[in-house]
Amino acid sequence: MKSINSVAVVGGTHGNEFSGIYLLRKWQQDASRITRESFTTQTLFANPKAHEENKRYLDSDLNRQFAVEDLANPELANYEQSRAKVMNAVLGPKGDAKTDFIIDLHNTTSNMGPTLIVLQSDDFNIRMGAYVKAQMPEAVVVFEDQIPLAEHKFVCSIAEQGVIVEIGPQPQSVIRQDVLDWMETMTGHILDYVDLYNKGQLPELPPTYEAFRYTETLKLPENAQGERIGMVHKNVQDNDFRPLHGGDPIFTLFDGSEICWDGDYEAYPHFINEAAYYDNNLAMSLAEKIAVEL
Amino acid sequence: MKSINSVAVVGGTHGNEFSGIYLLRKWQQDASRITRESFTTQTLFANPKAHEENKRYLDSDLNRQFAVEDLANPELANYEQSRAKVMNAVLGPKGDAKTDFIIDLHNTTSNMGPTLIVLQSDDFNIRMGAYVKAQMPEAVVVFEDQIPLAEHKFVCSIAEQGVIVEIGPQPQSVIRQDVLDWMETMTGHILDYVDLYNKGQLPELPPTYEAFRYTETLKLPENAQGERIGMVHKNVQDNDFRPLHGGDPIFTLFDGSEICWDGDYEAYPHFINEAAYYDNNLAMSLAEKIAVEL
Repeated sequence: MKSINSVAVVGGTHGNEFSGIYLLRKWQQDASRITRESFTTQTLFANPKAHEENKRYLDSDLNRQFAVEDLANPELANYEQSRAKVMNAVLGPKGDAKTDFIIDLHNTTSNMGPTLIVLQSDDFNIRMGAYVKAQMPEAVVVFEDQIPLAEHKFVCSIAEQGVIVEIGPQPQSVIRQDVLDWMETMTGHILDYVDLYNKGQLPELPPTYEAFRYTETLKLPENAQGERIGMVHKNVQDNDFRPLHGGDPIFTLFDGSEICWDGDYEAYPHFINEAAYYDNNLAMSLAEKIAVEL
Repeated sequence: MKSINSVAVVGGTHGNEFSGIYLLRKWQQDASRITRESFTTQTLFANPKAHEENKRYLDSDLNRQFAVEDLANPELANYEQSRAKVMNAVLGPKGDAKTDFIIDLHNTTSNMGPTLIVLQSDDFNIRMGAYVKAQMPEAVVVFEDQIPLAEHKFVCSIAEQGVIVEIGPQPQSVIRQDVLDWMETMTGHILDYVDLYNKGQLPELPPTYEAFRYTETLKLPENAQGERIGMVHKNVQDNDFRPLHGGDPIFTLFDGSEICWDGDYEAYPHFINEAAYYDNNLAMSLAEKIAVEL
């Protein structure tokens, strides 16, 4: 892989996820915290208008607007669709981007702790996970590499390399110090990693580490009319990255009855009961546990 | 006190506090859960329009619109000011209300557990606190009796008697099973209490119990321009109803420095880092611990 010359740190892709927005302000006053020798770093406040209105988005989720065909379609003209085209011009264009690596900062209401979501299982990302976990033992690494990076619709898919820093639990429209500290620490380790990678100075890393690979998304229980009729079971709530087996209770219906998971593998729920996912009636994501080999 | 003939259970006063809204739906299908022998019970979904938009309110906080002079002022005509006048016509009018007792159901993002907020320290409310705590040991009782009930601007101040059921932690726009269960349980105990009170059949209650009395509200740190420059200290976050003493760190500024509390009494913070209070840049409420005598 060619070296990383240009890095963008993006915050406020969702206007009510405060940690990235406040960190950008801090770093804009003291850029030394995100500056490293071997590359340039820029920051971008992705959706200030949604933040002003204290909402995730105005018209549609900005972090789902970066499909190549959508960026090329001038008829997709709502606020976030327009803003995506601007961001693509500034950081991209996707497929031939002037930015080599994007770190996109997010919060979740789920109890996921400090999570690094990587979208490719190449050497650069695999070693990044190892490095971050070595520096920050509480970090969790999730591979969402089920499709090529270019097919993702995320902000960070504009560049050839991109990751999501996803920290929780934090309610929407709140700043928690623990969550802010985790986000700043993880972002710093990622920037350190890129600098060491560029310079060929990576320390010795363990030959293998534990991570998770996305498998599927579960919906909240609905009736035939598409109305929500249940919620995440209290045994599952807050237990992000704890194993779930077939037959375990997973939902409680409002009538008091329980639904058990019918899966046939050991699953690791995450984004459990994430507030923003109610828009699409999603309950959680599932992953399998993997041993990543360097 | 005359007996309670008419009770209203209000949910969805804030459109993104989901527990009360879902419980109302459940009870509307099975009214037996909120029906008691000695009074009638009605339910009211206070702000369905804010719920549709998944917001706390459209124009202004509905739970601050029930001052007698505001209810009488036709120039206060925004959505919630109008809705308040409608609710006052249905449940009130305040000062001569057809409803004897209102239970208003709320969620908080703060780690307050199941909290009963009472607005008067008369025999009816004091015994209610004792009864609820006897049935539900994890319950917390807070007295906000610093002004007469009629001077409060809350929904529940329409009637001669009113309480707030305040359950957390729950992010905005989420349903947690533990929080939903607590809300249903506490509401049931309050309704049982009213029924037993009416019938003169209250069980023997302990002669004294621990509760909290509201003292003051603290703001988040601001600079001279009124911009937020800090957050709740991580030692205080989630420690609702744990003691705070003068000299304890209470805020962390974004530059890393700490602010200590300068109070001269043992304070019990609650509503710590409540998302909705950011609108007014509020950090938390404080209370003193009290021993309530029956």
